[in-house]
Amino acid sequence: VSEAYRGAGVDLDANARAVELIRTIAAGASTPDVVGGVGGFAGAYRLEGGRLLVAGTDGVGTKTEIARLTGRYDTIGIDLVAMSVDDVVCTGARPLFFLDTVVAGRVVPDRVAEIVSGVAEGCRRAQCALLGGETAEHPGVMDPDAFDLTGFCVGLVEEADMLGPDRVGEGDVLVGLPSSGLHANGFSLVRKVLLDRYDLGDVPPELSRTLADELLRPCEIYAPLIVELAARGLLHAAAHITGGGIPENVPRAIPSDLRADVDWGSWDLPPIFGLVQEAAGATDDDMRATFNMGIGMVLVVGEDDVDAVIAEVPGARAVGHVHARS
Amino acid sequence: VSEAYRGAGVDLDANARAVELIRTIAAGASTPDVVGGVGGFAGAYRLEGGRLLVAGTDGVGTKTEIARLTGRYDTIGIDLVAMSVDDVVCTGARPLFFLDTVVAGRVVPDRVAEIVSGVAEGCRRAQCALLGGETAEHPGVMDPDAFDLTGFCVGLVEEADMLGPDRVGEGDVLVGLPSSGLHANGFSLVRKVLLDRYDLGDVPPELSRTLADELLRPCEIYAPLIVELAARGLLHAAAHITGGGIPENVPRAIPSDLRADVDWGSWDLPPIFGLVQEAAGATDDDMRATFNMGIGMVLVVGEDDVDAVIAEVPGARAVGHVHARS
Repeated sequence: VSEAYRGAGVDLDANARAVELIRTIAAGASTPDVVGGVGGFAGAYRLEGGRLLVAGTDGVGTKTEIARLTGRYDTIGIDLVAMSVDDVVCTGARPLFFLDTVVAGRVVPDRVAEIVSGVAEGCRRAQCALLGGETAEHPGVMDPDAFDLTGFCVGLVEEADMLGPDRVGEGDVLVGLPSSGLHANGFSLVRKVLLDRYDLGDVPPELSRTLADELLRPCEIYAPLIVELAARGLLHAAAHITGGGIPENVPRAIPSDLRADVDWGSWDLPPIFGLVQEAAGATDDDMRATFNMGIGMVLVVGEDDVDAVIAEVPGARAVGHVHARS
Repeated sequence: VSEAYRGAGVDLDANARAVELIRTIAAGASTPDVVGGVGGFAGAYRLEGGRLLVAGTDGVGTKTEIARLTGRYDTIGIDLVAMSVDDVVCTGARPLFFLDTVVAGRVVPDRVAEIVSGVAEGCRRAQCALLGGETAEHPGVMDPDAFDLTGFCVGLVEEADMLGPDRVGEGDVLVGLPSSGLHANGFSLVRKVLLDRYDLGDVPPELSRTLADELLRPCEIYAPLIVELAARGLLHAAAHITGGGIPENVPRAIPSDLRADVDWGSWDLPPIFGLVQEAAGATDDDMRATFNMGIGMVLVVGEDDVDAVIAEVPGARAVGHVHARS
């Protein structure tokens, strides 16, 4: 667990304990139609005819605060779509639709409209429908200008076409897809260590843009690409690199008797991660357990298909291999 | 718009303007599979084979604050399930599964587990699966002990079996189903006017229980009942009475050329609503536009089936009729 992150007020141990407790409780409200063992990125529900609905929910953490501090609300909705949609596609499902909930201390119509315009843009990028949403005002509980976002995505996949650990074998290659910066994880730490030191309008020497521009870069949305690669039979599994980073998310895509060896030197670390690391005084392990480190999605690909996948995706590269546990 | 509610910091005009703006933006991220005109309680998406997925999202507003102030976290999850599930069933869909997101200033594992145990209980009552969820910590943005909940539900219905305005005709009867108190709307106003005047442990003379017990009563979950009545062909439409009360929600279940006449004297107002009204100095219209007033669900039923429906549901009664607009 990241000590730096704990210092920023996020207790990942507590989160892990909560997840353990929840797992047992949730098992008591399952039904025979729920499909287990889908790799942990989303839940799957069996329809008739061999098809599964796959659903995921997530927010954008406190990246909302950067939107608030800069008054730039038009891209955080892209992040919101990315967080759920790219969890769902890790099962091989095609995202069908998305819903959002916006909660604000005070509802400012133009601001909510900007947020939802980002959600709509995210849905277009993900090639799914924006099916609905909800706006709620929580005066006295949230700061008037604070807001929070939650997203929800449903996808559909033939059970026979699902991606996941079952398909992964020894010798498979990990192909990393480049992230567009921090995406939407680790912002409690980022805010704590960077906003004391810089103004959001500053251009730190390590970056080629203002800190605001860097922090607000919207998440890359990988969904259409992954749907296409999966349809061509080029993927065994996929891991969306969000909270917990590569060390927590890649193992979800790998069977428990195999091990993912990541070659951390095989790609260039984007400068924002070095900036955060230096400001936080964080170890490499801390950073890797918190941030995507420049890789937003890891595909697990058979050796023979690696060249085809890498040729298809600008910036994709082999970042490791799947080995037997020794 | 409720003046009393505005005084509590909730600006329903701003909410209405936000909804207008969002409608246009969301239309730009629709797809041909999205089904319009489903009555406004949830969104519908067309699968192959004449079936529709119906999805809804909602939270429990600031009822979370009552849970926090009393330290009683084990029923607010029931409310969360009710809010989404009972929107979805208004289309005639059978709820398949539910997902939740818990956001807290600080994640206290036992507290999150209590919240999710309520969610699990809600799913059992709604006869749907708890498919997944997410827990997130937002330090520095929320008060450490504050939390917020968002829920999502997906249901399934044959297109030919959908409920809604299309089925409603002149002479249809509005059948009201009793609520279990305030449910999960209007809590910003309730907190403002009651918590200054009473301790949560007080038993106000109008009530037969402590204020805490009254305010925390979990929402009635109508889903299994409505699924059954719909399967028996006894329903034309249904309206979940949430934010905006009967005046805003019943018209969503009625075609625009007809009018719902509610006989406000046809049921006894539960005492909590009188208590809030007196403390708020609110008009009848304000109260009706904010609270369920004792009716949590309104069914629209053909004249010939009213007796069968009322015989089926304890406490159900005719509360109005559908007329031509004059």
